[in-house]
Amino acid sequence: MADYVFFLKNVLMVSLAMNMGLIWKISYDDEDNITTSIQQKLHFHPLYFNRQNERQHDDDEAYVTKRTQMLASLESVVINLDHGDPTMYETFWKQKGEETTVVTSSWQHISYFSDIKNVCWFLEPGLVSAITRLHKVVGNAVTEGRHIVVGTGSSQLYQAALYALSPPNTSTPMNVVSAAPYYSSYPLMTDYLKSGLHKWAGDAYTFNKEEPYIELVTSPNNPDGFTRQDVVKGDKGILIHDLAYYWPQYTPILSPADYDIMLFTVSKSTGHAGTRIGWALVKDREIAKKMTTFIEINTIGVSKDSQIRAAKILEAVSDSCNQKEAESFFDYSYKLMAERWKKIKAAVNKTQLFSLPNFPQETCSFSGRTFGQLPAFAWLKCEEVDDCESFLRRHKILTRGGKHFGASTKYVRISMLSRESEFNLLTERLPAIIS
Amino acid sequence: MADYVFFLKNVLMVSLAMNMGLIWKISYDDEDNITTSIQQKLHFHPLYFNRQNERQHDDDEAYVTKRTQMLASLESVVINLDHGDPTMYETFWKQKGEETTVVTSSWQHISYFSDIKNVCWFLEPGLVSAITRLHKVVGNAVTEGRHIVVGTGSSQLYQAALYALSPPNTSTPMNVVSAAPYYSSYPLMTDYLKSGLHKWAGDAYTFNKEEPYIELVTSPNNPDGFTRQDVVKGDKGILIHDLAYYWPQYTPILSPADYDIMLFTVSKSTGHAGTRIGWALVKDREIAKKMTTFIEINTIGVSKDSQIRAAKILEAVSDSCNQKEAESFFDYSYKLMAERWKKIKAAVNKTQLFSLPNFPQETCSFSGRTFGQLPAFAWLKCEEVDDCESFLRRHKILTRGGKHFGASTKYVRISMLSRESEFNLLTERLPAIIS
Repeated sequence: MADYVFFLKNVLMVSLAMNMGLIWKISYDDEDNITTSIQQKLHFHPLYFNRQNERQHDDDEAYVTKRTQMLASLESVVINLDHGDPTMYETFWKQKGEETTVVTSSWQHISYFSDIKNVCWFLEPGLVSAITRLHKVVGNAVTEGRHIVVGTGSSQLYQAALYALSPPNTSTPMNVVSAAPYYSSYPLMTDYLKSGLHKWAGDAYTFNKEEPYIELVTSPNNPDGFTRQDVVKGDKGILIHDLAYYWPQYTPILSPADYDIMLFTVSKSTGHAGTRIGWALVKDREIAKKMTTFIEINTIGVSKDSQIRAAKILEAVSDSCNQKEAESFFDYSYKLMAERWKKIKAAVNKTQLFSLPNFPQETCSFSGRTFGQLPAFAWLKCEEVDDCESFLRRHKILTRGGKHFGASTKYVRISMLSRESEFNLLTERLPAIIS
Repeated sequence: MADYVFFLKNVLMVSLAMNMGLIWKISYDDEDNITTSIQQKLHFHPLYFNRQNERQHDDDEAYVTKRTQMLASLESVVINLDHGDPTMYETFWKQKGEETTVVTSSWQHISYFSDIKNVCWFLEPGLVSAITRLHKVVGNAVTEGRHIVVGTGSSQLYQAALYALSPPNTSTPMNVVSAAPYYSSYPLMTDYLKSGLHKWAGDAYTFNKEEPYIELVTSPNNPDGFTRQDVVKGDKGILIHDLAYYWPQYTPILSPADYDIMLFTVSKSTGHAGTRIGWALVKDREIAKKMTTFIEINTIGVSKDSQIRAAKILEAVSDSCNQKEAESFFDYSYKLMAERWKKIKAAVNKTQLFSLPNFPQETCSFSGRTFGQLPAFAWLKCEEVDDCESFLRRHKILTRGGKHFGASTKYVRISMLSRESEFNLLTERLPAIIS
């Protein structure tokens, strides 16, 4: 029976991947000219498979009868690991019951306001407690003496920080830099409105202007997973620390981060990307106020429903770390990441075509485990091909090429956070590629 | 007993208003220099009373013993009717039970994606149905042949529309105009990032450049409640219709609006401002795609939790219109608005100091009722005073002055959507003002 279920799962996986490929093709053919450039940078809209198809095709028998055709189509299936949709933790959350369920009556949370005593007046008090508690439990960031600013995801907070840090009345826009390879959305988010406040100034390693600048430090880094420090040696810099991946399933926690502006998000910490909640820990009150002002103008606050839900989920994560009878969220997610990295390394080692970064082993102060980074993305290098993204695309693996990150086209970024079916297809296909 | 409860409610009301005043004072004294200008334009952060105080002070007896002091303080209480926090429908929603309650498990809605077949890939299918159905039930907008784009409130959609309509590669930013008095946040939302794409060009009545422009048509208008058409007579214009108040509690519905870009929001239609959900009905597919791209870059989509909740609430509103045994949402809200307008007109008529606009009577195709506008804001004119906002502030009534709307300082905008206690204080205080 177990074998039969396993077989069905595999057939379902193939069918899903086929749907994904077909939808990708339909969407791709339909792509418009006007927005192609930005869509390609974002990598969002046309390149994803629809979970609705999963629900439509729930007749197992029908699949069994069609298995011959489906298995024959396996090689033509497109795997989309271009973006980092964090669906891999869904299984953990499915095990959780009422303690993580949110019930909202229609009369609740109807006001724009959450707590006018707070600098960030649209921040729900319950979320403040949950964030503060979780950082204390994990030991990954200092919250004492910080103002919390909530955002519609950390992307909004990044833009809020740029707004807060850029002088309003200068003749030239503020330079914004980050060491390559940098997160591919930073240049776009900085420049899409052609703001007179700030402009993307590229790779921090090559920035040598005698002008004020903002340096983004992403640690662990997206796309390559390395621990980072600031690299510009000027004295006119302001730092923003993007710590979206500074959680114990991705990296050994070494000490509580203690920077001026630190960005976090539930998208990568707990896997709730659809909830669109990020938070900033901000030392300076005036900066926190200006970030709040940005969000006031941009979206008049942040959805209360999602704040309430995020609070419940963060509390559940903290609770899970204190329970001995059940596996904690970070134990579960660490083991899943470790297993996936083991599999992808094994797949890559079967061929001479690719390589992956090596990370030093360090001891995590949270878990006590000693391990190297387990990044949310694999920063894969093609050893023999110049355009790795196109090369993999010809083999039906969609990734994001190095050029989007200010790096060589020999590199691609591959999401490690997909559902199991897609990840398994990847690790089967990589070693099967000959050239 | 009923009298006693009524007395307690009144004392509580006074206490709340006192809290509001005290908090306002503390916040106001603490106001910073850097952001004062923008905060004053936004009128959000420091000028609101905190509902938490309502919960803290639930010991009725304590209030009764202190009633003498409190009643003595009545005249010094600050009423804040500056912003349009739509809390007045809370009572209606409190009557609703399970049918409007949303239950969300922690594993649901975890992906960034909702429906990749849709131009707006982060739009929940349930919200599409709910929006389409409600517009059909009310008859206030054409949805056939339209793309729906969801936003984190209609503010984000306004900015998305500007982004979509402004050519990306011109040397001068696109002119954005609206007939005065216009919504006070339009200039700020257009210019806060000093965008090279668009710039605020002021009152549409005075715009006479031979250049392309975007004209915002808000109908019914914020702040004055009048029905509007576009006013610029140029041939290079593109229109955005902000129809946030085109609902049958505020205005007679005359026909389904049939414009290229129409903006709506749950904030004003159902009173769920904390949910931050707006929607645009967009005729042109390319414009809808570019608006979607803006929201991708700005916030990587819109919170699913709030979309699910908004869908449930909009469905409940449609359901209520089809039930004969219970009062529909629009019957309830129309009666409430009609009652408040009767009260404020009576209050204003007791003095020669103020006046209010007069609206023509028309027949609503939805309700069959014949009535004049019942705007969400009272556009009050001081007949004898030049600075009406300061004048009323001296009488402890916080309003938004005409200059913020591109109009005379003899006018102020007063929210009609507050909770009952604040509104009642207003109608008691206005006729008591002598000079």
